Amino acid sequence: MAHPSGRTTSADWSSSNFNDADRTTSHVHSARAHLGLHPTAPIIEEHDTAEHAGNVWVKFRAVLKEPLAEFFGVLIMVCFGDGSVAQVLLSQGQMTAPGGNGYGDYQSINWGWGFGVMLGMYIAGDSGAYLNPAITLTNCLLRKLPWRRFPIYLLAQFLGGFIGSGIVYANYINGINAFEGGPNLRTVPPAPKATGAIFCTYPQDDLTKASQFFSEFIASAILMFVIFALKDIGNKGQFSASGSWFPLALFFLIFGLGACFGWNTGYAINLARDLGPRLMSYAVGYRGVWSAGGYYFWIPMVAPFCGCLFGGVLYDLAIFTGPSPINAPWFGLKELTKPRHAIEDRKEIQQRDGLV
Amino acid sequence: MAHPSGRTTSADWSSSNFNDADRTTSHVHSARAHLGLHPTAPIIEEHDTAEHAGNVWVKFRAVLKEPLAEFFGVLIMVCFGDGSVAQVLLSQGQMTAPGGNGYGDYQSINWGWGFGVMLGMYIAGDSGAYLNPAITLTNCLLRKLPWRRFPIYLLAQFLGGFIGSGIVYANYINGINAFEGGPNLRTVPPAPKATGAIFCTYPQDDLTKASQFFSEFIASAILMFVIFALKDIGNKGQFSASGSWFPLALFFLIFGLGACFGWNTGYAINLARDLGPRLMSYAVGYRGVWSAGGYYFWIPMVAPFCGCLFGGVLYDLAIFTGPSPINAPWFGLKELTKPRHAIEDRKEIQQRDGLV
Amino acid sequence: MAHPSGRTTSADWSSSNFNDADRTTSHVHSARAHLGLHPTAPIIEEHDTAEHAGNVWVKFRAVLKEPLAEFFGVLIMVCFGDGSVAQVLLSQGQMTAPGGNGYGDYQSINWGWGFGVMLGMYIAGDSGAYLNPAITLTNCLLRKLPWRRFPIYLLAQFLGGFIGSGIVYANYINGINAFEGGPNLRTVPPAPKATGAIFCTYPQDDLTKASQFFSEFIASAILMFVIFALKDIGNKGQFSASGSWFPLALFFLIFGLGACFGWNTGYAINLARDLGPRLMSYAVGYRGVWSAGGYYFWIPMVAPFCGCLFGGVLYDLAIFTGPSPINAPWFGLKELTKPRHAIEDRKEIQQRDGLV
Amino acid sequence: MAHPSGRTTSADWSSSNFNDADRTTSHVHSARAHLGLHPTAPIIEEHDTAEHAGNVWVKFRAVLKEPLAEFFGVLIMVCFGDGSVAQVLLSQGQMTAPGGNGYGDYQSINWGWGFGVMLGMYIAGDSGAYLNPAITLTNCLLRKLPWRRFPIYLLAQFLGGFIGSGIVYANYINGINAFEGGPNLRTVPPAPKATGAIFCTYPQDDLTKASQFFSEFIASAILMFVIFALKDIGNKGQFSASGSWFPLALFFLIFGLGACFGWNTGYAINLARDLGPRLMSYAVGYRGVWSAGGYYFWIPMVAPFCGCLFGGVLYDLAIFTGPSPINAPWFGLKELTKPRHAIEDRKEIQQRDGLV
Repeated sequence: MAHPSGRTTSADWSSSNFNDADRTTSHVHSARAHLGLHPTAPIIEEHDTAEHAGNVWVKFRAVLKEPLAEFFGVLIMVCFGDGSVAQVLLSQGQMTAPGGNGYGDYQSINWGWGFGVMLGMYIAGDSGAYLNPAITLTNCLLRKLPWRRFPIYLLAQFLGGFIGSGIVYANYINGINAFEGGPNLRTVPPAPKATGAIFCTYPQDDLTKASQFFSEFIASAILMFVIFALKDIGNKGQFSASGSWFPLALFFLIFGLGACFGWNTGYAINLARDLGPRLMSYAVGYRGVWSAGGYYFWIPMVAPFCGCLFGGVLYDLAIFTGPSPINAPWFGLKELTKPRHAIEDRKEIQQRDGLV
Repeated sequence: MAHPSGRTTSADWSSSNFNDADRTTSHVHSARAHLGLHPTAPIIEEHDTAEHAGNVWVKFRAVLKEPLAEFFGVLIMVCFGDGSVAQVLLSQGQMTAPGGNGYGDYQSINWGWGFGVMLGMYIAGDSGAYLNPAITLTNCLLRKLPWRRFPIYLLAQFLGGFIGSGIVYANYINGINAFEGGPNLRTVPPAPKATGAIFCTYPQDDLTKASQFFSEFIASAILMFVIFALKDIGNKGQFSASGSWFPLALFFLIFGLGACFGWNTGYAINLARDLGPRLMSYAVGYRGVWSAGGYYFWIPMVAPFCGCLFGGVLYDLAIFTGPSPINAPWFGLKELTKPRHAIEDRKEIQQRDGLV
Repeated sequence: MAHPSGRTTSADWSSSNFNDADRTTSHVHSARAHLGLHPTAPIIEEHDTAEHAGNVWVKFRAVLKEPLAEFFGVLIMVCFGDGSVAQVLLSQGQMTAPGGNGYGDYQSINWGWGFGVMLGMYIAGDSGAYLNPAITLTNCLLRKLPWRRFPIYLLAQFLGGFIGSGIVYANYINGINAFEGGPNLRTVPPAPKATGAIFCTYPQDDLTKASQFFSEFIASAILMFVIFALKDIGNKGQFSASGSWFPLALFFLIFGLGACFGWNTGYAINLARDLGPRLMSYAVGYRGVWSAGGYYFWIPMVAPFCGCLFGGVLYDLAIFTGPSPINAPWFGLKELTKPRHAIEDRKEIQQRDGLV
Repeated sequence: MAHPSGRTTSADWSSSNFNDADRTTSHVHSARAHLGLHPTAPIIEEHDTAEHAGNVWVKFRAVLKEPLAEFFGVLIMVCFGDGSVAQVLLSQGQMTAPGGNGYGDYQSINWGWGFGVMLGMYIAGDSGAYLNPAITLTNCLLRKLPWRRFPIYLLAQFLGGFIGSGIVYANYINGINAFEGGPNLRTVPPAPKATGAIFCTYPQDDLTKASQFFSEFIASAILMFVIFALKDIGNKGQFSASGSWFPLALFFLIFGLGACFGWNTGYAINLARDLGPRLMSYAVGYRGVWSAGGYYFWIPMVAPFCGCLFGGVLYDLAIFTGPSPINAPWFGLKELTKPRHAIEDRKEIQQRDGLV
């Protein structure tokens, strides 16, 4: 937006200047640093004036840029994902549907979660679009994402799942009432008219704890292994899925996990996608969300972290040639012998590389 | 097309020159300006001679370039969308189909609308491919699309929906007769053999007005929120869906809305896609198109506008850092205190930026 | 392949030189010109030596480069398309299939034809990948494809359909025998155990001739209209589907036509895809392939030409601003008053532009 | 990673230097040469220091870079592919699934194998992502891939299939027990509760040996024919599917083969995908894996080689103009008359071109 006339008008958006612009900026930087984020918000140069605008909200938002991105990314992901389960479950066998057999089938749910992840990534470009605490953690450990960002990302992702599932609940409340048999009935599997599986995952009956864990573990490991392959510029590049291709590849990956590893435990593979909606369903009155499946609820909290770490380490062991602790002497475990020294070294490097 | 010989032949298309070319051009400019369009039609330089050709139709078409693009874009969109509903509904359960169970299922309809939007966008590149009055309006309010274009775009989109659904009706008239039970029967849901839902949306039974509204509202809000994300060059670019990727992403988005938010009210999310075909179905003899669902017809006229505006404002509040009234002081609401002044300022800026 | 040593070995493929290379080349050129093709075969510079190799077959193949491309393109297209119908039809309801209900459903057929067209285009890049006589014809009339190429392309496309359907027949002969009830039974719809629809299209029962024609006409018109939009560089480019995107967009388009306009007559929209396989099914013993549906067989021969021409003319009338007879004075119809003169002019231009 | 401070820390991954770096490198080169691989591992320049790191595993891995890529590529491919069959088969008709009819249908299996191949290719970029011994062989014969690499690639691919199917078995062991009726029952088709088809392919009943062979042969031929077309830069380039498009096109191709040529024998088209899992299923206790279908097991071992060779030769005969023995005089068969001389020539060329 060139300003040949030099005149600033109220309709000329975002170009207002303030004498205290510098002070504002320094407030933003300091607030961001306290949250574990990089002092400078990721705003492209053309839009940079917005950070200095007189709009207080704009300043506040600049502080929370990446957490907001993760929040809305997970929110949209869960809207589509939980929405697809709700639609398929509630309309099951409805004969007035076009085609005479409900508004979708199990594949619609694979589509739904695939769309959710893909579109969520487009929304969360500012933060790296992790959308999953286990993926965030693995990137902290193996890909130099500063650990300080983990807590705020985790919180934002969790809240995104919580609110996203609330939107789905609000949208389908009529259908849930009709399916359960009344507005006061809110049941979870294996109750015959349960709708709890709309929000979070429940395992198949008679599945051992080990199988529950293994199912979430292996799906998370594949998830991380493939993501690292897709992002590995050293993996010869000829089939590169970077840039615009990445969300599409993730769509295929999530769809694939749902079609191939979704039966045992419903492919949670993500604390934010499971615990957030589980808490929401608890809040709106579902009973048994914690005890179902032999207190299964902790599996999708723990297994994805184990699985993603395993998958990430395996990729670095087997294929990755770039900078990773795995490629350092003693697989980087030497750091554990002198933890304080290692942390100081790491900090120094992160500052040098402009990561914090 | 080089003209080394300098000779112009009748077979040498589009190169004819006329003495009154300048006069023609000025007529075109003036007619376009009256319609609220930019004086110069969006024609690439290589094709520019066409505007001056002696073909009267070509001149007329240059005047209506963008409205024609919106018209045909919506027409193709509705042909695919309504066509898929017609095929699935009318062939329901047909045992002579390959596979023994009709020519498609509910997912075919998700595909159909997805294809329709994607292919409609390829056709309506000239006008920006809004294909939806609510999206046009939100772009006027938040993205500097001049308000003057709104009426003619709305009209073109509405007519596209009207004619597109007429083509589908003509194509499937035999099947509709057979399904309804005779050429004089044209019923809408919840009649047992209703075919009215081929053309426009009807809500599920027993859905409250609030739920009807909320369903259209939330789907429209997600639609606009994601579209703004896809178009936001400041959203870090690494997952950019601009250029060739945009129609593909829209395909996924529309498919997703149908798979995840399509049950309650059939995801109209577009006045042109609902009111146009509704009027066509009324014109060809369907009874009850207005009163069905408790006079539901106004919901897909009003809710998409509210939802798209909400989704657009939310995106600008939460993520967008570029030029938007939301990013101006007082969220741009100051303009409301001096409306005349604000309109003059806006006009000045639009002229400076070459938008009108 | 650099040859630093200058030594030519028998293993050094394709680099042999012959004294009579020039004579060979001139033979190739002359043979190609007689077939209506451009004298020079479309071979990239790096591969150009191949044309001069001593391998007689290589020379022969250079003569038929484009027809071979169309032949194999249509062959692959029909292999996938007819193969999908065969698989879905013959395995219908088979309970031992994974999932317990056959090896695919109607949507598999939409996928199959979509894949066929997409992969066929990758194979037929040399010739422009028309794969359809009606599309070839429309390009001759509106996009300067020389008319002289039409006959040989038509023949190649027809033979591709003929042989491709023969491969499908050979592959599924056991299944056809089992489905029909014996190796001597080969029936077409509406016979209860008919398998004739594997190869070519048959209309729904009780469809009037007008509806049969209209269904093929409208699907062909949409096909051509959208293809012209996808190829129109003047259609603002922002949603361009050129280059690598084109086959993907065609995949969506063909899938969409099958999902939305496939019920009445099975979306033949292509003489080569329908008449070629129809003749093959007649040759292997199917009875009634010509008389079925009230001698329906001529509809998919004639309607696609009419529909594609209509769709192409409509696009040029409504949107296209580039060189087209429609954009010439009197819509190019003036040529009809002096046909001989027009043909001479056209030839001159084609030679100037290097098209013949 | 710039090192402005010049200081090396333990946290500064992968930058350690060793005096014996040269010796290490020469060990790696020599070990790789013994395995038939190119002496230098395919590592991009930015990552090249990793090869010299003090981490012994990193050195070992550099030796096996391409085989590891093929191993993990096939492993992931089989995880998704066999996983999808397992999920669809074991959940067949389950009424508690959302939608009320199991967790997927036959199409999910087409998706699964398509995803598997696509994601496997992203993982195996280092080695060329053949993932199939028959494709490797055809590339050795027609595309200058050194024959010496064939054995180690074959072994890696086979092991990938073996381990991948083991992971699927471990993940679904509960479901297999429930479906078969007990932990000691492991049956193959046509047993009524057989689960053997999860791992490897079994033919339809009553299919002649010729039809079994032809089905695998034709699917493999199409596979190779289309892959060569996708990789042919001389095929005019306008529809090029190179680079990022290649895995997507392969996804469509594999999905298509499953949807159109998957009924007779389950589209094995790959020894590694069939024999590896077959051996695993034999190892875990399935009975009849060798004798089923009239000792069908050798068909997917032999037919893919024949089919891929045929498809590759056909493409080179019909369309390819680049360097191939088919384009040499006498179709390269002259080499057979003086085999020793031909091998020496070939070696010389390979060294000159840097292939070995």
